[in-house]
Amino acid sequence: MDALEHPALDEIRIEAVLQALADPMRLTIVRTLAERGTGVACGSIELSIGKSTRTHHVRTLREAGVVHVRAEGTSRICTLRRDDLDALYPGLLGGVLAAEH
Amino acid sequence: MDALEHPALDEIRIEAVLQALADPMRLTIVRTLAERGTGVACGSIELSIGKSTRTHHVRTLREAGVVHVRAEGTSRICTLRRDDLDALYPGLLGGVLAAEH
Repeated sequence: MDALEHPALDEIRIEAVLQALADPMRLTIVRTLAERGTGVACGSIELSIGKSTRTHHVRTLREAGVVHVRAEGTSRICTLRRDDLDALYPGLLGGVLAAEH
Repeated sequence: MDALEHPALDEIRIEAVLQALADPMRLTIVRTLAERGTGVACGSIELSIGKSTRTHHVRTLREAGVVHVRAEGTSRICTLRRDDLDALYPGLLGGVLAAEH
């Protein structure tokens, strides 16, 4: 499989990041990645949705620059681009993760 | 005119706030309000859009809990709910306002 495309730091746009985060399922993915640290199999994150919807949400997060995804065998390993997001928008991710509602 | 409805602090939802912020025009409104402080006439914010679109964007921000709007004569005065957002999602608004792209 070819490497998946990811936006470089200067290609990441705030509107796309906010749009990607503005969904309960994608927020769950982001919260799980933030808790577990690096290298989580996308498929192992508990979500009450089908595989194709999950794939769509992970792609939206990847294309916005929120997560990095790499293939490892048949799995896709997700990592939150926390350093990149903190560099571009200091405080944003922390504020989102602090949300109780 | 009746007072406009605003969500109370415990009614504000992170998904709605992110969705409201994830638009270039609405981000421009939020940036302008952050720069000018309290009490900006919504209509005085420079935007290359018509009145009805502007009204729609301000309503989206108000209903999400991002701005407070009150009537003053025929004007509507907008204020960013910065303290409320900082209390709920510390860092989020600062990160968004820091965005260069």
